[in-house]
Parts: sequence; C-alpha cells; structure tokens
Amino acid sequence: MPTLLIKNAVLNGEPVNIFCENGLISAIDTGDHPADETLDANGMIAFPPLINAHTHSSMTLFRGNGDDLPLMEWLTQRVWPYERSISRDEIYWGAKLAIVEMIRSGTVFFNDMYWDFHAVAEAVEEMGVRASLASVMIDFTDDASARQRQFDRIEREYEQLNRYSDRVTFALGPHAKYTVSEESFRWAADFCKRYNVILHTHLSETEKEVKDCIAEHGCTQVEYFHRIGVLETRFVAAHCVWLNDRDIALLGEHGVVCAHNPTSNMKLAVNGVYPYKKLRDSGAITAIATDGAGSNNNLDLFEEMKIAALLQKFDKDDTTELNANEVLDMATDNPSSFFGLGGRKLEVGRQADLILLNPYLPEMNPPHDLASHLVYSANGSVVDSVICDGRVLMKHREIEGMDEIIANANEAARNMFARVDDA
Amino acid sequence: MPTLLIKNAVLNGEPVNIFCENGLISAIDTGDHPADETLDANGMIAFPPLINAHTHSSMTLFRGNGDDLPLMEWLTQRVWPYERSISRDEIYWGAKLAIVEMIRSGTVFFNDMYWDFHAVAEAVEEMGVRASLASVMIDFTDDASARQRQFDRIEREYEQLNRYSDRVTFALGPHAKYTVSEESFRWAADFCKRYNVILHTHLSETEKEVKDCIAEHGCTQVEYFHRIGVLETRFVAAHCVWLNDRDIALLGEHGVVCAHNPTSNMKLAVNGVYPYKKLRDSGAITAIATDGAGSNNNLDLFEEMKIAALLQKFDKDDTTELNANEVLDMATDNPSSFFGLGGRKLEVGRQADLILLNPYLPEMNPPHDLASHLVYSANGSVVDSVICDGRVLMKHREIEGMDEIIANANEAARNMFARVDDA
Repeated sequence: MPTLLIKNAVLNGEPVNIFCENGLISAIDTGDHPADETLDANGMIAFPPLINAHTHSSMTLFRGNGDDLPLMEWLTQRVWPYERSISRDEIYWGAKLAIVEMIRSGTVFFNDMYWDFHAVAEAVEEMGVRASLASVMIDFTDDASARQRQFDRIEREYEQLNRYSDRVTFALGPHAKYTVSEESFRWAADFCKRYNVILHTHLSETEKEVKDCIAEHGCTQVEYFHRIGVLETRFVAAHCVWLNDRDIALLGEHGVVCAHNPTSNMKLAVNGVYPYKKLRDSGAITAIATDGAGSNNNLDLFEEMKIAALLQKFDKDDTTELNANEVLDMATDNPSSFFGLGGRKLEVGRQADLILLNPYLPEMNPPHDLASHLVYSANGSVVDSVICDGRVLMKHREIEGMDEIIANANEAARNMFARVDDA
Repeated sequence: MPTLLIKNAVLNGEPVNIFCENGLISAIDTGDHPADETLDANGMIAFPPLINAHTHSSMTLFRGNGDDLPLMEWLTQRVWPYERSISRDEIYWGAKLAIVEMIRSGTVFFNDMYWDFHAVAEAVEEMGVRASLASVMIDFTDDASARQRQFDRIEREYEQLNRYSDRVTFALGPHAKYTVSEESFRWAADFCKRYNVILHTHLSETEKEVKDCIAEHGCTQVEYFHRIGVLETRFVAAHCVWLNDRDIALLGEHGVVCAHNPTSNMKLAVNGVYPYKKLRDSGAITAIATDGAGSNNNLDLFEEMKIAALLQKFDKDDTTELNANEVLDMATDNPSSFFGLGGRKLEVGRQADLILLNPYLPEMNPPHDLASHLVYSANGSVVDSVICDGRVLMKHREIEGMDEIIANANEAARNMFARVDDA
C-alpha cells in the first residue's frame, strides 16, 4: 500500500503534516516524511469524514422524478414499477453516482440498503470508500419456498464477501416490518447474531405503520422487534419518528443506532420528529443520514446536519435544542465505533480517513466557530479533498472519472425508464 | 457600457448565444455578435438570478457567534453591544462579504436593512449587484428631538441617492412595531408615499410581539399598520409568521410582499410557520429570503428554497405543499416587478441579469427535472457564472478580489469584537 503525506494541513488550529501508511495515520507533526504520494493541503482544515447512517445509494437514478406527489402515488407510479425491472448494471451506475456525490460532500462511509449486494459492493470497491451494505429482504409473497430462496441467496452473498476488501462490510436488510414476515425477521435476527453482522431496517417512519403493528400484534414496532429478538442484534433503525417512551427506553437499553433522516421525513410529510434528546438520554446511538436521493434529493450530510438542528429547535420551540457540536457528533463520532470507524478525533493510529475543509470560502468567515460554520453555514462544497484508507479519493475538488460516471448513470436511468415506459 | 456576448449557453433546452448591450438582453439566438467581452458558457444553463427579499447584509460579521443560545441572550450579549459600536468601515466590509456570498449562490438583488445606508450602498455599487437599501429607523428613546434628528438623517440620505447608479434603490426601514413609535411609523408611511419608496419592516415574527400589540392597541400588528397607513405604501413585510385570516386578507388586498425566512424562523424557534398557501391565495406577493447571517447563517437562496418547501410539507402534513416550481417563483418571479426587476423569463428586452448553472455536477443528474434539482438537490455552488446589468460579476466561480474582501471583513469583525470586549 503506497504511503501518503498530507502537507500544510491545519488541525486544531495548528499547521501539521499528516503521514499515512498501511491505511493508518502514523504521524501528525511538522516534520517531512518521504512518501509515495504527497498532497499539499494548502492550509485546509483536517477533519474526520462524515458518516451516512442510512441511504439507498442507487436511488440517485430516481432523483427529481416525482417530487411533490402524494407518497403512495410516488411509490406506486414513479418508483416501484421501475425498481421491479432495474438491472444489475443500472444499480452499479446509480451507486457510483451516489458515491461521487458523497465523496464530494465529505462522506466516506455509508450504511446502504438497495437491491443487488454485489453491484453496490463493486462500486464501493472501485471508488475507494467504505460501506455497510445490506443484503435486502422483502417478502413479496407468503410462499415459504420463496422465503427459503431468499435465505439461500443471502447466505450465498455472505459467503461471497471475501471477494471484497475490508472496506465492504456485510449487513442484512429486512426492509421493514410491513414488507417482511415474522418468520423472515426471526431468521434475519438469528442470521445476524450467528455472523455478528448489522441488521438494518426501517422503523416507525410513519404513524400508520405503528398503528398497523398495534392492531396486528397489540404492541408497537419496537416492542415487536424486542419480542422476536431483533433488538439483540447489532441493530440500525432508520427514521425512528413515531416512538413512545417505552420504545425509546428499549432502543436505549440495546444501544441501537437510530438514524435520523430529517429531510426525507419533512419531504414525505411523516408528520413527526425524531425525538433526539430522549433517544440520546436513553443510551441509543444518535446518528444522521440522508436517506436515498428519491426522497432527499441529495446526499450532502452538511445540509442534513443543518436541517436536523433547525427541525429540533422548531419542533421543541427552543433555540438551544441539538446544538452544532451535538449534530456534528451524530455525523462523525456517535455511530463511529459501531460501524468500525475511527471517530471524530484525528490522531496517530487511527484509520487514515479524513477530509480537508476549505477555510478560504466566504461562508467559513469570519472564523468565529468552526462547528457552527460546518453545521449552519457551509454545505458539501466546502470539502476540498477526501482521503480514505490512506488514498486520495478527491484532490482539490477533482474526482477521477466523474464525468464518465455521470454519463453512464444518466444512460442507466434513461434505459430503465424507457424499458418500463415503452413496455 | 461595454457589450457582452455569452456563448454556448442553454436556454429551455436549446443552445443559444445571449448578447447584452446597454444593460439589456438585446439578442438570444445562435448567431455571432461582435462584443467587447465574450464569456464562454460551456453548455451551462442560463437562468434568472435569485431575489433575496429580506436580509441584513453586514451581519456576516456575526456569523457563528452565539448560535444555539436563547434568543434574548444572543441579542443582548452577542449582537447589540457590538452593533452599538460598529463603524461605517466595518459595515462596509460586512456588506461586501455578504455580496460575495450572494453572487456565489446566484443572487444579484437583495432587499436589505442595516445601519449606515452609504456604507452598504458603496459596497453594492462596487460589487456590481442591485439592492433595495433601507435607511433604518429605531426609536431608542421617547425623545421628540431624537426622532426629528432621525427624520432629518433619512431625508438627507434620500437626497444623497444621486451619488449612486440605478442599481441602488432607496427604501425606508422602520425596524419593527416594537422598536419604532407610532409617530415615527406615521412619518415613515408618509415619507414612503411622498417619494414612492419601499417601506421595509419586520412583521409578526413572534407570537409575543403580536400579543403585545393586541394588549396595547386592541388589534394585531397588521391591523395596526393598516390603521396608521403603512399598508398603503409599497410594503415589504419580513417573516409574516403569526397572522390570522383577517391579517392575511389585508396583506393580500394591499399586494404586500411577504418575505418568508424559513431557516431563521426555525433556528430562532418562533414556533410558527409562514402561511404560504393562504398568503398566495389572498393576493399577497410571496417571496423568499435568507435573513441575516446572524440567524441563518449563510445567504444561499438555493438552500432556503429547499428548507421552505420542506417546512410547508412538514407543517401541513402534505407532500404536495409548496412544490418546486412555486418556490422557484417565490425566489425569482413573484416579487420581481415590485422590486423593478426582470422576472423569471430570460427574453430580449429584459435586464441583462442572469446566472449560468452547471449541469455537469452529480447533484444535477440524471437531468429529469431542472426545477426539482434546483430546489431539492443543488445548493449555491451549482452557480458557475453571474451577470448583472450586462457585466460579468463571477466567471466560472471566480470573483475578482474575493480573498481581499474576506481578509478585510475578518479584520473588521476582529476589530469590532475586540473594541467592545476590551472596553
């Protein structure tokens, strides 16, 4: 693995050189280190990369196709007919477009859920980022043999994990309570415990799904998951909007990662707000996420941090709710060790994942408070360069091959839509 | 005035050249036009610039200084002590920093309210943008002679308007019902009618100010302004959060520009939402604004459009509220003729104000729907070049003198804070 020297960066207000070898930061000092590659940071601020705790990467292909529609009309007419026909190649190019966007806005790890594990895994490998990729489960029918085929497919995908570097981690993604049978969820929980892999699902995004669960099982979704063993897994729950105090206590007791998607929740009008402070105080791991580009419509966590902080203040009628440092922690530190990442502090021995932020932009000045500027003023375009696993993925805003990726993703989207529309 | 040819732009999906002379668009075609200056648009999308209907430009100096605090603590400890001492020079550099930010995010007109008319006017002149600048009124005391001195200062500033080009328009800015006496408001309304200038004030931002007005006058702020003649002026009301149906009808009847500031409203936890649909249906002019960088903390209207649309959907529990085209209209067309600007349509004879948008960025692809991408996916960094009055203000993201402006604004902020803190 080639060594990398990042020269003239700024860390905690001090000029430093950062030396990376074997995927780790091995020195932070002012000395020179002969290296295979040198990146002049030009006074940019070294900062940990951001963590996207829930997305559907390939949905970039659906970006801007059917906004402002009622939820069910959007899903049944603008998403599902196409997803039923989407090809492996189309998923691959959608994921690549998503990863380009995430790199450009300072994210090098994302927790994903989308069809075709291998298509997304290849995109992650080639782009040089890290991801937890869910092998997706949905029970389209009640048929036991279909369920078994799905279990077999997942076991097979897990066995094939050795195709990839350790930047790709395996997760299991039963889509949601309302699309996956109890039998499959019990199998999923067992699978995740057996292999110690993350279980990633949607949880209590809308009031309807919670009411439906109560009508069917006499308990909330969280209690239901508790009952069937899901909370005992390494559990990432996306959305977590409609929760009662008992739900929150259970999520806290089990150290669940609760991924907050404020933009998606507002755009899809779920009519509720992630109970940030209660979740934090319960011991749950608070994290932040963009959701997919179908419902956001970008993958810029800087924007997401601002909207998260604004939404909490608005909802609680209190300017002090979810301050800038707390929301930065949601995007960097809080879910970091859960996902096997290096956390907010850049120090020797840590994974060589970092971003360089441009302090020379108008929105970063006057330099009163870096945390405030990152959350409330900047957007992803403040990211100058991105390093993951000791490799430079974006250098001074340039990502190799970006134009080709965009062109191929556009063609993939055209093909997918034309195939269904012309059928 | 030098002529300008913008080559290889895209307008309504077609490649065009845009020829500008005497501050107007004089041709849109595919022909060549000999010009003093040529800008190669490289396939960028020609689009009207955005209109910022309410800001306090020089408050960029306060960016990030005292977020997440209770409102009164922020104002009394982080803003007012410094504003009392701020110098003309500091205001000038703060405004320049604000204008750089606005140009970089596609805004070339802003409706401003800040201390020292001339300091901001000079910044506007030099930067080449357009602005409606309010000469500010606040009654710090009950003293009649102080009021008279303020009236005299405003008359004098109005007389001195001929120092500037017609890119600077004069407005009168009585700060708010709760900081300006009835006598002064009546004088302001009379002044504005006499000279046909805009009256720009804060209106019904918080519940408290409306309740206080009812306690004092037995009516809401809108009814109070109606009673004393303010609604008969060319009236811009910022915020418009706490309104009843009678207020909305009055604002509609008088064609008032109601400037929506969603980020500021959420960040300052005003606990209410601009009633978009009711205001639109009443005949009021719906517009969008960033507010100052003390409470936003940037001046990016792309971000503001997204947050506006999200907030309406969330508040009304309806995904169809305030769609992408409507919010684009708020930022371009709706308040355009009120402010003497060219509107959303780029056509021959219009003011030569336009922006070029970069369609080659990941967040602009696949190119399903431009309006959606501008509102929900892009931020201000999608703006490649900016033209105002036939002059190129930003060329391929470069603004001449930007680094010096940032350095001087930072020094101005340092001086202002040090002077007060060390006193």
